[in-house]
Amino acid sequence: MTPELSQLFEFLRFPSISTDSRHKGDVRACAEWLDAKLTGMGLTSTIHETAGHPIVVARNQHVEGKLNLMIYGHYDVQPVDPVELWASPPFEPEIRDGKIYARGATDNKGQMFAHVLGVEKALADGELPVNLTLLFEGEEEIGSKNLTPFLEAHREELACDVIAVSDTGMVGPGIPTMGYGLRGITCGEVIVTGPSSDLHSGVYGGSVMNPVTAVARIVASLHDADEKVAIDGFYSDVAPLEDWEREAWSKVPFGEKEYLAETGAPASVGEAGYTVAERLWGRPTAEVNGIGGGYQGEGSKTVIAREAMAKLSFRLVPGQDPDDILDKVEAHVMANAPKGVDVKFVRGHSGEPYLNDPHSDYGKAAQASLATTFGKEPVLIREGGSIPIINTFKTILGADSLMLGLAVPGCKIHAPNESFNVENFEAGIELNQELIRRLGALGKKS
Amino acid sequence: MTPELSQLFEFLRFPSISTDSRHKGDVRACAEWLDAKLTGMGLTSTIHETAGHPIVVARNQHVEGKLNLMIYGHYDVQPVDPVELWASPPFEPEIRDGKIYARGATDNKGQMFAHVLGVEKALADGELPVNLTLLFEGEEEIGSKNLTPFLEAHREELACDVIAVSDTGMVGPGIPTMGYGLRGITCGEVIVTGPSSDLHSGVYGGSVMNPVTAVARIVASLHDADEKVAIDGFYSDVAPLEDWEREAWSKVPFGEKEYLAETGAPASVGEAGYTVAERLWGRPTAEVNGIGGGYQGEGSKTVIAREAMAKLSFRLVPGQDPDDILDKVEAHVMANAPKGVDVKFVRGHSGEPYLNDPHSDYGKAAQASLATTFGKEPVLIREGGSIPIINTFKTILGADSLMLGLAVPGCKIHAPNESFNVENFEAGIELNQELIRRLGALGKKS
Repeated sequence: MTPELSQLFEFLRFPSISTDSRHKGDVRACAEWLDAKLTGMGLTSTIHETAGHPIVVARNQHVEGKLNLMIYGHYDVQPVDPVELWASPPFEPEIRDGKIYARGATDNKGQMFAHVLGVEKALADGELPVNLTLLFEGEEEIGSKNLTPFLEAHREELACDVIAVSDTGMVGPGIPTMGYGLRGITCGEVIVTGPSSDLHSGVYGGSVMNPVTAVARIVASLHDADEKVAIDGFYSDVAPLEDWEREAWSKVPFGEKEYLAETGAPASVGEAGYTVAERLWGRPTAEVNGIGGGYQGEGSKTVIAREAMAKLSFRLVPGQDPDDILDKVEAHVMANAPKGVDVKFVRGHSGEPYLNDPHSDYGKAAQASLATTFGKEPVLIREGGSIPIINTFKTILGADSLMLGLAVPGCKIHAPNESFNVENFEAGIELNQELIRRLGALGKKS
Repeated sequence: MTPELSQLFEFLRFPSISTDSRHKGDVRACAEWLDAKLTGMGLTSTIHETAGHPIVVARNQHVEGKLNLMIYGHYDVQPVDPVELWASPPFEPEIRDGKIYARGATDNKGQMFAHVLGVEKALADGELPVNLTLLFEGEEEIGSKNLTPFLEAHREELACDVIAVSDTGMVGPGIPTMGYGLRGITCGEVIVTGPSSDLHSGVYGGSVMNPVTAVARIVASLHDADEKVAIDGFYSDVAPLEDWEREAWSKVPFGEKEYLAETGAPASVGEAGYTVAERLWGRPTAEVNGIGGGYQGEGSKTVIAREAMAKLSFRLVPGQDPDDILDKVEAHVMANAPKGVDVKFVRGHSGEPYLNDPHSDYGKAAQASLATTFGKEPVLIREGGSIPIINTFKTILGADSLMLGLAVPGCKIHAPNESFNVENFEAGIELNQELIRRLGALGKKS
């Protein structure tokens, strides 16, 4: 085993499960190990206490005129349940068929440790050509709630020109991928109430609006026959996909077939006029994340439920404003509320969409680094999901994020038997050296 | 307190909860008390063992040429939970404001004991003019599962011309009510499966059919804009309401206002072209009794569920065949299954609708008895619910049932603070004397 892998294994052995208070000590021990590693590399590392788990920040000696690069990652991991489904113990890393199996192997210890080792190798070549700040938190898996106040409190010290984040995915093994956008999100819940208590569906059925029927009709009204979102004005402010994006995405080897293999869905279904990639990365959606009402147990119970609900979420793309969309959703829900029930719409949380210019100097440097590392031109994608911290970085630090994900489809983050390809770990180390070199060559812009 | 009430109180004090095995002894003690009472009245009473709780059968001396009348009731009761909501202990009957409060007060001990005391009074006048069989079971609240084989095994002995049952309701206090029909029922479950596991709604949303959306669309497709059932052929075999029924029901003081007060629903909604009473008693329905899929907990979880389900039931009216309706429902569900998910329809249990002729000699005798007892003409209704045992009597014994319910709206059967109006108990005793007299006068038809 290489020294790099053996250090990663040490890192992976900490059961740094941030959501479980029984592992509070393990999370701290992991932060201390990381701090020691970074200090040992010649960086100035500090463990910052928060109301929750610590944040580790390490820097080289910053010098006027050099570009300020921040690298972000997280050392906390998801729980391991159901642990009996793991082929090997989640905190005893093991390599099988070229993959490292462990909780956190991909998300995010493997990817973030490739950053660390890339920096270490770059340092071995002498002084870094960038002012580097490594920011590693221990609460990403529980919503990064102490990171935002930390960024606000350390705004000056953390000022940077650009941020590198490896916490996303590659479209396929060996295909270098740079993300330059994320969808936003907004959520709400439809609550339908009808009779004052559950009613016998024989004695009362046929003369009262059934709250479950009502919620089903509201959910069914969200899309038209072309699977477009049927909410008035939903698409009004959507920034159309640019020609270069549609062209670039059409070459990405991610289509119907890959999609079905990955999801297990019987067929791909989505907004008419768009490819799978376009639907996922560049178009907004309306989804129902949960529905419930009446009897859900075994067999039958002939009731008309007094209440039913549906949880809705909407993925947003650049141009769309979460509050405006929630207004439109609420108006739609109310307009589609059947007579004979009371319908309430409860607004939930939101996150803005994110988009940067992949053809900026930073973006070009990142793409060149990916090309050198993987030996082929990277593909440019947006992510379908939302990574709130990327927006927070933009808002508080004013810096864009280069999303240089190394996760491959099937790596099972958050699930049993999470793995990370050894070759991606090694590529990640090289990628980080390349990135520091190329960004350093750009120098300070302002 | 009258001797009649004091005997009813004794009967009500048995916690004869059939579903709870801890009360097995109480159920038996109640049957023995009943048997002793019937024997004491001069009837030949027998406790018949079953695989569950006993059936008590009592008869007078049967004589050739007299009409055979069966009276059916049940001495078992529902559980009392949540017991803390009772204003007085459920098995310590108490009279407040002219109502007897106790579990079983209306359902069915109060109503059935009015039968018993009516028979006792009739016996006091001399030999009964009918061949009487009293059939009281202890398992009605748990599905009467041992009664069907008992009826089959004692078909000859239980042969009768007509059956009287007081286990339904009056449309309002003081309004004598005779039921002559029941809706049937058929059930099924729609199960929708999509991706092989729950998917992240950001990463995958927009390109896969959401099983929750799919089940909502299927449920929403069950009715048209007029709230008619939109299943092809659903109404083909429905026996239309007869003119006399529509006319009679239009005079029943049960409409929009009473309905809303009783259900707490914000408005009455149902099939266009029919009154509330017609929708409830004479028209078939499609209801969804439960729906579920995805995340139903607090807050939000941005998943696309792998599976969703809806439990459907259909109330049927004369002319409709449960199996035929299930075929049509299944065809409709399949025809409305969105692309990109697998939809399965699982057929559930069924019960035939029931209808007798309220203008038969028996029906007329029952109505005359109601009119004499309550001092006004009875209203003729059908019941919206299903009472399977009424169909079983028809099938096995070939006899129709006169449904002479004494329950009033708000009597809270199956719920805390069940009550029975003292005046209905007393009226019930008189009603039974009248019924025996009038049916006796008809004599044996065949």
